[in-house]
Amino acid sequence: MNMRLEKQIDFIAESDDLKTVLRKTSPIHDKRKENTAEHSWQVAIAAMALAEHANEPIDIFRVVKMLLLHDFGEIDAGDTFHYSKVPNSEQCEREAQGAERIFNFLPQEQKEEWLSLWKEFEARETPDARFAAAMDRMVPMILNFRSNGGTWKEFGIVASQVIERNKHIKEGSDSLWTYALQLIEKSTAKGFFADAPS
Amino acid sequence: MNMRLEKQIDFIAESDDLKTVLRKTSPIHDKRKENTAEHSWQVAIAAMALAEHANEPIDIFRVVKMLLLHDFGEIDAGDTFHYSKVPNSEQCEREAQGAERIFNFLPQEQKEEWLSLWKEFEARETPDARFAAAMDRMVPMILNFRSNGGTWKEFGIVASQVIERNKHIKEGSDSLWTYALQLIEKSTAKGFFADAPS
Repeated sequence: MNMRLEKQIDFIAESDDLKTVLRKTSPIHDKRKENTAEHSWQVAIAAMALAEHANEPIDIFRVVKMLLLHDFGEIDAGDTFHYSKVPNSEQCEREAQGAERIFNFLPQEQKEEWLSLWKEFEARETPDARFAAAMDRMVPMILNFRSNGGTWKEFGIVASQVIERNKHIKEGSDSLWTYALQLIEKSTAKGFFADAPS
Repeated sequence: MNMRLEKQIDFIAESDDLKTVLRKTSPIHDKRKENTAEHSWQVAIAAMALAEHANEPIDIFRVVKMLLLHDFGEIDAGDTFHYSKVPNSEQCEREAQGAERIFNFLPQEQKEEWLSLWKEFEARETPDARFAAAMDRMVPMILNFRSNGGTWKEFGIVASQVIERNKHIKEGSDSLWTYALQLIEKSTAKGFFADAPS
């Protein structure tokens, strides 16, 4: 038996569970919550469509790979709501352990490459990671805006929270952040946000 | 307003409906049917993990792109069961029209690139398309095998049908086809297939 192939197939089967991790966001024309696997597909598609808007030169294949695997830590750790109050460091630690476990199914040099891309995404210190992170934040904003406020409305989010938690889009793409601010402005006009506490 | 960006965002929002197209296969640890968006994510992951098994030199980024967009025709046409008796040409025509409509949301030169990749996948005449098609067939076999027969059992499929409908995996990867034949043999032993009509 081909042991490398066996390991790779085990890895594919193991990562299938990403389809069972539910996020807070819903698809535009569906009431159910989306799962992390379809979200990963969508942010990769967004990167391919929007690559020209990156602030810096990027390697778009690295960005796509990063986005396809950026949430593998959630297979063990689950999704954390972007506006949750759980200390970020605890969730990060759980996700890092999860990523380590799942990539461990791969042959050694593949494990190292995938884990390294996963860490690069988390650290957001390279042009590729900054643009990938912008995609990861931009797409849920589009979904919320196109589904009458979506999770913003459902969870009583205020506009300033959305700005605060998504402003790093600007590090990856100025033009997308300009677009995001217009979305937030239109969403405020449409009453998608809760009132700011006075 | 940036018209190119506006078109690209519309494209991303429009393709969100791929999450609502249900396939026949289920995730390994879930009873629901998977949708085409999460399937697209998984075959792209599989291509990245299994690239070394391609029969011919491939451009793995082209393969990944192709796989992420290979089912865009289904947004309008729906999924057709791999063992369905609907004439293939009718479904192909509906999917081609669907792909044309959806890619039309993109700026012209992007539309041309994406539609061309979509057609290349369908035609299965290049090394990249042959390997991509092998991924598209290999992954559902892994899911069926790991969920006690899955759709094979549910729909009374016989082993010879699985061989007939998946044998083009061999065009993309001899070693994966060898692996697939072993899966089919084990599945027969486990009673996952219906008896062949006598």
